[in-house]
Amino acid sequence: MQTRPIALLTDFGDLDAYVGAMKGVLLSLARHAPIVDITHQVPPGDIRRAALLLWQAAPYFPPGTVFLAVVDPGVGTPRRALAVEFNGFACVGPDNGLFTYLLATRSDWRAVALQAETLGLPEPSWTFHGRDVLAPAAARLAVGQTLASLGRPAGDLVRFPLPRCELESETTIVGEIIAGDAFGNAVTSVGILHREGEQLAFEPWLPGSVPARLALAGSQVIVGGLILDLVTTFGAVAPGESLAYIGSSGLLEIGVNQGRAVDQLDLAPGQAVRLSSARRTQR
Amino acid sequence: MQTRPIALLTDFGDLDAYVGAMKGVLLSLARHAPIVDITHQVPPGDIRRAALLLWQAAPYFPPGTVFLAVVDPGVGTPRRALAVEFNGFACVGPDNGLFTYLLATRSDWRAVALQAETLGLPEPSWTFHGRDVLAPAAARLAVGQTLASLGRPAGDLVRFPLPRCELESETTIVGEIIAGDAFGNAVTSVGILHREGEQLAFEPWLPGSVPARLALAGSQVIVGGLILDLVTTFGAVAPGESLAYIGSSGLLEIGVNQGRAVDQLDLAPGQAVRLSSARRTQR
Amino acid sequence: MQTRPIALLTDFGDLDAYVGAMKGVLLSLARHAPIVDITHQVPPGDIRRAALLLWQAAPYFPPGTVFLAVVDPGVGTPRRALAVEFNGFACVGPDNGLFTYLLATRSDWRAVALQAETLGLPEPSWTFHGRDVLAPAAARLAVGQTLASLGRPAGDLVRFPLPRCELESETTIVGEIIAGDAFGNAVTSVGILHREGEQLAFEPWLPGSVPARLALAGSQVIVGGLILDLVTTFGAVAPGESLAYIGSSGLLEIGVNQGRAVDQLDLAPGQAVRLSSARRTQR
Repeated sequence: MQTRPIALLTDFGDLDAYVGAMKGVLLSLARHAPIVDITHQVPPGDIRRAALLLWQAAPYFPPGTVFLAVVDPGVGTPRRALAVEFNGFACVGPDNGLFTYLLATRSDWRAVALQAETLGLPEPSWTFHGRDVLAPAAARLAVGQTLASLGRPAGDLVRFPLPRCELESETTIVGEIIAGDAFGNAVTSVGILHREGEQLAFEPWLPGSVPARLALAGSQVIVGGLILDLVTTFGAVAPGESLAYIGSSGLLEIGVNQGRAVDQLDLAPGQAVRLSSARRTQR
Repeated sequence: MQTRPIALLTDFGDLDAYVGAMKGVLLSLARHAPIVDITHQVPPGDIRRAALLLWQAAPYFPPGTVFLAVVDPGVGTPRRALAVEFNGFACVGPDNGLFTYLLATRSDWRAVALQAETLGLPEPSWTFHGRDVLAPAAARLAVGQTLASLGRPAGDLVRFPLPRCELESETTIVGEIIAGDAFGNAVTSVGILHREGEQLAFEPWLPGSVPARLALAGSQVIVGGLILDLVTTFGAVAPGESLAYIGSSGLLEIGVNQGRAVDQLDLAPGQAVRLSSARRTQR
Repeated sequence: MQTRPIALLTDFGDLDAYVGAMKGVLLSLARHAPIVDITHQVPPGDIRRAALLLWQAAPYFPPGTVFLAVVDPGVGTPRRALAVEFNGFACVGPDNGLFTYLLATRSDWRAVALQAETLGLPEPSWTFHGRDVLAPAAARLAVGQTLASLGRPAGDLVRFPLPRCELESETTIVGEIIAGDAFGNAVTSVGILHREGEQLAFEPWLPGSVPARLALAGSQVIVGGLILDLVTTFGAVAPGESLAYIGSSGLLEIGVNQGRAVDQLDLAPGQAVRLSSARRTQR
């Protein structure tokens, strides 16, 4: 089997040698694995944002990729360390909710709980299991070792509550804000949208979310006390003006042209967002 | 043919999964291509700075390298997406001036306009053609697909006006400031300089720029109301003092030892810079 | 021989094309060398912090790795450029103290002084020997060229004074603060600690540092006027409270839960740190 690529997502930042040491471990155990950074700038301990980034990036990687995700505020506590094999890719990381969106949108997974002793590793440091436990496990998957060989089967993985995305009426979908991005845009749970001519096609992406087709013309987004037009590009509104648009992951987003929507519109995760169209189209 | 390396230059920053998703696409389509980051920290939408960085980095990469440059404020508008094959390397990016310096300093290029349909790609997102169109095109070049197979021939590429670099008198070269770097140094259009013993040799790098040889001794730079000595290292002046020196790309630069020249001397792109020597030397 | 991996440590930041150009050179001369970043965010010119990061990262890389370290405030002055071959890895960088910790903790090294002419390289730029001299030398080591072929033997490498780490009494080890990390934690010279059940085992890591075993229970750290409990995780103290713990490199560190110890406790390199235990345990 060809060596599997390894993609990294952490909150380590880039000021210290932490990412480097972890890559050294990967390189030591999986010399031919392509190693790719997703980001190391997850806000420290922000598990929900990391879970979203992981869900956003995963579809674009080649089959077999091993995602090594280390946002691990509970390191040193008895939280489990996991390896999860999906159909087509694998994840390694702490059991703290990091895989919530992937687990919610897939049913084809098996997980094991990792332990340094089981893996034949030396006693890990008190504070850096990313380097001492998780990276060795990811490297072993990358070189073809089986999931079962890495630990004991694990169920009941930690997940945070899923956001809602429901059809509220024939022409209104209600969801909520789930995260901000680096530019201050607010990402919502409303999606996956495809534009098909004059229609917006919604595909279910979370359990409970609904398929629907709304007319593009006259679609509006209501959030807080605001009513925003759904437009196709930031340039459709004047600088400083708010807009709603479909982000590159297929989720509805709220932005401000040349501004920071999260701050300027005072948006926060959990806040309700409604997308309304003048009419529902034929399915 | 060996897989061509791919070098990335974007304004995506490192906080989101955008660079990661783009690398996932590259890895999916060109598994064996070495992928190297130039930078992802171009100031958002700063095409002129991106064009300079691309021109600065390109000569140091191996023959065949594909440069994937995504500074794309016009994404979603009808701006063209390009692949440009030069003699020895290729570029992929939006048609917005990003390749101005490379096009100005080379005559050996051919370009095609990319389209998702022509490339057999699914309909791209509204906001992320770097991932959906440009990365797939770069990967196809990397694995040996021909330029002609990627789109229709394209001419009249967008370029911004070139800065001047002229011989104003026997002993004076006049140019202008073209960009600031991350340390607040101002890069000028005056170059390419080589030191040959006691002489400064200027080689033409832009159309209209001139070859010349000036004496190193007593060379001075005039910018704004300032007269600065041309020195070889920052350490040649006291902390806080201004200096002129030859940057690592062979262009004359203005700096402040342990300071930010752009801010402290109030320098801006377009501002005239004169390099004067006591005498012109023999050619 | 398999191509050796190359690991990079610089203070170039990520805003310019400097790292990219250096990687282009490496790729040109050592096409198959895996290239891994340790960090490019060393504070400009901070040789002591770079030396610590290099010492921290090196043990985690595969045998044979070439570390290319460019923190080079003296570029352009007559400071030497070095290649140093250790038993199991090599370093390339300026002779300014960057290798102090590695040299202090190993005796198995040989060094050569690099020169552009000797290496058959074109005249280097005035300001960027990382790209023009050091990267070519690192690439040559990576592809199997011998140390001796790169330059003339060099001794008396520049080193900064080592911090102390001494047994002050049967139950007290005295060391000093040697650096801050990116999170504002203070790293000390007291180490290497392993926890073995109820004991802390100290292994010598610097010349003059001592092996010892202290009881874990009741161990305290005295720094400035403060007395801190030695704990195993940040979560052991309330937010805003100070703590002492064993960092992931085995050195004693001082932190503030959800805060910046260096700033809040006014800690600085050179400041004495004492670790005291109620009793010494059997060796």
